[in-house]
Amino acid sequence: MTGFVSFVSYGPGDPDLLTLAALKRLQAADVVLYDDLSSGPILEHARQGADLISVGKRAGRPSAKQEHVNRLLVDHAQSGFHVVRLKSGDSGVFGRLEEEITALRAEGIQFEIIPGVTAASAAAAAVGIPLTRRLTARRVQFLTGADVTGHLPKGLNWAALADPEATTVIYMGKRTSAALAAQLQAHGLPAETPVLLAQNVSKPDQNLTRGTLGSLAQIVADEDNDGPALIMIGPLMMGT
Amino acid sequence: MTGFVSFVSYGPGDPDLLTLAALKRLQAADVVLYDDLSSGPILEHARQGADLISVGKRAGRPSAKQEHVNRLLVDHAQSGFHVVRLKSGDSGVFGRLEEEITALRAEGIQFEIIPGVTAASAAAAAVGIPLTRRLTARRVQFLTGADVTGHLPKGLNWAALADPEATTVIYMGKRTSAALAAQLQAHGLPAETPVLLAQNVSKPDQNLTRGTLGSLAQIVADEDNDGPALIMIGPLMMGT
Repeated sequence: MTGFVSFVSYGPGDPDLLTLAALKRLQAADVVLYDDLSSGPILEHARQGADLISVGKRAGRPSAKQEHVNRLLVDHAQSGFHVVRLKSGDSGVFGRLEEEITALRAEGIQFEIIPGVTAASAAAAAVGIPLTRRLTARRVQFLTGADVTGHLPKGLNWAALADPEATTVIYMGKRTSAALAAQLQAHGLPAETPVLLAQNVSKPDQNLTRGTLGSLAQIVADEDNDGPALIMIGPLMMGT
Repeated sequence: MTGFVSFVSYGPGDPDLLTLAALKRLQAADVVLYDDLSSGPILEHARQGADLISVGKRAGRPSAKQEHVNRLLVDHAQSGFHVVRLKSGDSGVFGRLEEEITALRAEGIQFEIIPGVTAASAAAAAVGIPLTRRLTARRVQFLTGADVTGHLPKGLNWAALADPEATTVIYMGKRTSAALAAQLQAHGLPAETPVLLAQNVSKPDQNLTRGTLGSLAQIVADEDNDGPALIMIGPLMMGT
């Protein structure tokens, strides 16, 4: 009997931002695969006796290779287990879902995807603003700040990104923030455009810092926080 | 004693996509203000004895004016109640949150925002795809298809929207889909670009139809479904 894989988005970290669907999957799981980005409080919802398997980065240990994660998913499902693969935020937004889906399809293993609250929504809620506004922020866009080499992705659509009437959210963008800010200004986005640096969104050590595009690199450099961060850019970031 | 307003995002409709935070607010509410887009199953989570007040559109009745909604929020909070204002999807994404926040701030009434699962995340999960992919869909953007007059908003950034390497999601875009498809093609997006029409996402009558940009207007015309719809455009829409 073949098992089943649930890709479970668990939101940005606050266990209260789990959906009921995510909770049910955790409570039914035989095996839970998690990255170390997953906070302990999420795993506490797993069924007693479930196998909890870390596949993420650890201090002093390299990250598990994607192939290894795929193998674990396939092996446990083929052993007949209900496998929960935890994904932070919404798994569809920079969650690297595709490689794992492809591996399951190749073996004919069924899966489902449970959507979740993406970090941008939680960060905006935390500062009391929406992500969109009629006329002045009618488009919202999400981007990653780093490609596989850790640099700003090549060939970005700067006309899209340097739009003063959009809300732009960069995931995993701290390391490339200086290059990003320079490029956006070179493409015409004013230095005084409001920005928000949102770190550890929804967690006890959440840290929200306002600034401008011109000061973004300095704001990032001044923080010694190494948790996950979002850089949010656009008129709404100065508050409503 | 002044009350308190919780803006509670409840996701696209499936009550299993409520977060635990949303559930707790509903269970604690004295008053719940909802639009008729809210499904009954969500309201069933409200505390027994809570006042449930519809402020949305009804057959044969005009939509409550925004000012009237603002007045209800302020009056109930000033009467000392914990008011839950339900918002579908994620309230920060085209949820018209700002007018209501501004009204509360003007009266010094405290509020919080509970983020939720936006419909785009749920639609992608339902078809088994992510919203982003390395290299070929590294930017995802959300837009509304209609301004207050019901037409395609003026002055859109077509260089951003007609990008073949982005996933573009148009909320409330059925009525303007023909104009949108024509403009996107005029700005260089190929007619064969994959699209997905996602209606009543996550609800029992969910309807997901694949097509291409060139056939979008016809696909929309062929549907007699009048529920909320998303139009999703980009390479991922043909499946992974």
